Amino acid sequence: MIRSFITGTGAYIPTLAIPNEDFLSSQFYNPDQTPVSHPTETTIRKFAAITGIQQRRYAAPGITASMMGLEAARGALDQAQLNPESLDQIIVAHNYGDMAHKGAPRDQVPSLAARIKQGLGIKNPYCIAYDLIFGCPGLLLALMQADQAIRSGAASSILVIGTETLSRVIDASDRDAMIFADGAGACILTKTDSKRGFLNSIARSDTQTEASFIYSQQANDGSEESPLFIKMKGHKVYEYALREVPPAMKKCLDASGRSIDELKMIFIHQANEKMDEAILREFYTLYGKTPPDYVMPMNISWMGNSSVATIPTLLHQVLTGELEHYQLHPNDLILLASVGAGMHINAVVYQL
Amino acid sequence: MIRSFITGTGAYIPTLAIPNEDFLSSQFYNPDQTPVSHPTETTIRKFAAITGIQQRRYAAPGITASMMGLEAARGALDQAQLNPESLDQIIVAHNYGDMAHKGAPRDQVPSLAARIKQGLGIKNPYCIAYDLIFGCPGLLLALMQADQAIRSGAASSILVIGTETLSRVIDASDRDAMIFADGAGACILTKTDSKRGFLNSIARSDTQTEASFIYSQQANDGSEESPLFIKMKGHKVYEYALREVPPAMKKCLDASGRSIDELKMIFIHQANEKMDEAILREFYTLYGKTPPDYVMPMNISWMGNSSVATIPTLLHQVLTGELEHYQLHPNDLILLASVGAGMHINAVVYQL
Repeated sequence: MIRSFITGTGAYIPTLAIPNEDFLSSQFYNPDQTPVSHPTETTIRKFAAITGIQQRRYAAPGITASMMGLEAARGALDQAQLNPESLDQIIVAHNYGDMAHKGAPRDQVPSLAARIKQGLGIKNPYCIAYDLIFGCPGLLLALMQADQAIRSGAASSILVIGTETLSRVIDASDRDAMIFADGAGACILTKTDSKRGFLNSIARSDTQTEASFIYSQQANDGSEESPLFIKMKGHKVYEYALREVPPAMKKCLDASGRSIDELKMIFIHQANEKMDEAILREFYTLYGKTPPDYVMPMNISWMGNSSVATIPTLLHQVLTGELEHYQLHPNDLILLASVGAGMHINAVVYQL
Repeated sequence: MIRSFITGTGAYIPTLAIPNEDFLSSQFYNPDQTPVSHPTETTIRKFAAITGIQQRRYAAPGITASMMGLEAARGALDQAQLNPESLDQIIVAHNYGDMAHKGAPRDQVPSLAARIKQGLGIKNPYCIAYDLIFGCPGLLLALMQADQAIRSGAASSILVIGTETLSRVIDASDRDAMIFADGAGACILTKTDSKRGFLNSIARSDTQTEASFIYSQQANDGSEESPLFIKMKGHKVYEYALREVPPAMKKCLDASGRSIDELKMIFIHQANEKMDEAILREFYTLYGKTPPDYVMPMNISWMGNSSVATIPTLLHQVLTGELEHYQLHPNDLILLASVGAGMHINAVVYQL
């Protein structure tokens, strides 16, 4: 049976570490343009308690999403020991394109994938380079597309990248600005005839009222009209994710024919620590169980939420042994899941 | 053999018809910010002689790419007599996202596909809605992705849309502004076990020096920094397209096992009339032949170049009998080809 197997991962960790204290001088406003009534210090304390975020990473000015993606790609290619010329496809998941600095216009012509292919110096014209827009779950959808292309025989090796500079689209007058971060992660998928690799995947799109849960809008304090900032109806997103993500994970796992007891680790999009923990508990509850210790690696406390970059970065950190208590070995079974703007959800069952 | 078949097409024709004369009061500048030395009237006359464009269509202010795409989708669904709830995927090719008016910030969060799914009122959560960025060839790549998903068994019905409002990203001080237009086209692809449908497809990405042939830049006259405008090294694009598109078309046709004499029509991305005619001649020359009459339908003279929308709109116009001298019948063999920012090229052989 033809499957696709991850033969290399890479990540770019942006250089600027921004602690919560950097927001102490902020004046936050509600979406209705009224000032947030609590002192900013209280807002930050509550924020940290819910999201688990103590620090986030920002790219230095001038460093764009495609530049970060290129670095992550180089790492993944090195690890896979793959000649870039043998790649059949490059798929880049993002949502805001390249922005050179905060307030810079968005740019995705040519596509970020074309820019990264150029940066890798690949001459092979049959290495197709395209971008995919699917909210935060774009990275997993790109992996699913790559897996489908490999299983269909259309490709043997595909480079999948998630890269985003959310620091360039946050509204400084919105407390949700503290959630978002920059980053890039990459995976190489290669054709294998092993029983390991991608076992199953699932995706869903809920676009009725849900399409407006994560959206683009002007600044809460009315000060800036452009660029449109990333905005979130946080409570709606939380309710939706907690209701829909655990059954989607279960549906994906059950259809793979594997048991929850076989799962070594679960990688959830690093959106919010409390939300991810609630999703995990609910997922195990669906099987009448409670989550074992050290089943869900997290990096949100020092990395923030970097959208499409969180899962590949976290996977890279675990696979390279950077996370204490989290070690993976060949044949280990893992589950990956993400949720985000659209709203979209997806999940993948993968055997190392 | 499982194939995918086009069961419906639709198009949205923007309401504003803009004749060349509307540019008579323009002052054009070269990319080096020097004024164009010819009188504007001469520039317009030369432009019309080369591109064949007499008029282009612009969307009315407030009408976005996703709104146009929704209208095109409704037409395609009507023609296919398909219940939208039975769609497995919605793929939207574009390059600039939604922009409500000229100078408006670009917006693709949530994705245009999610917005269109919302507009269609589709509740089915397993109808996956994502966007794809691949320059002007994005529409054909989206069709190729849809075909792959159908052949792999992952989907039975897919809505593919190309939509763009290039009028919102043209630099009024650049004579290339006259090329670009707005529009949207849509196709429904459905699973079939017929010998008809998608027979073969091919794509290539050339991203060395070619990545800078179509790009994003500030205004030629230095007046506006944002949004970044669509820019083109016209001569480089022309040389590249004429060198690489005809052999790509031949490679695609030859691998389909069909003969050039069987081709009833060839749909080329409506980029430039002289360029398309040169590509067609060169394609036939590769077979030691000359093009027959009425083999290449064109709508650029009154529609302009609407990027991802040109091919599906033209296909819709021919299939609904709107183009004199161009009629297609069941079993007719057609070839579709496009070239654009990346640079990317693709081609599809399709039997009606």
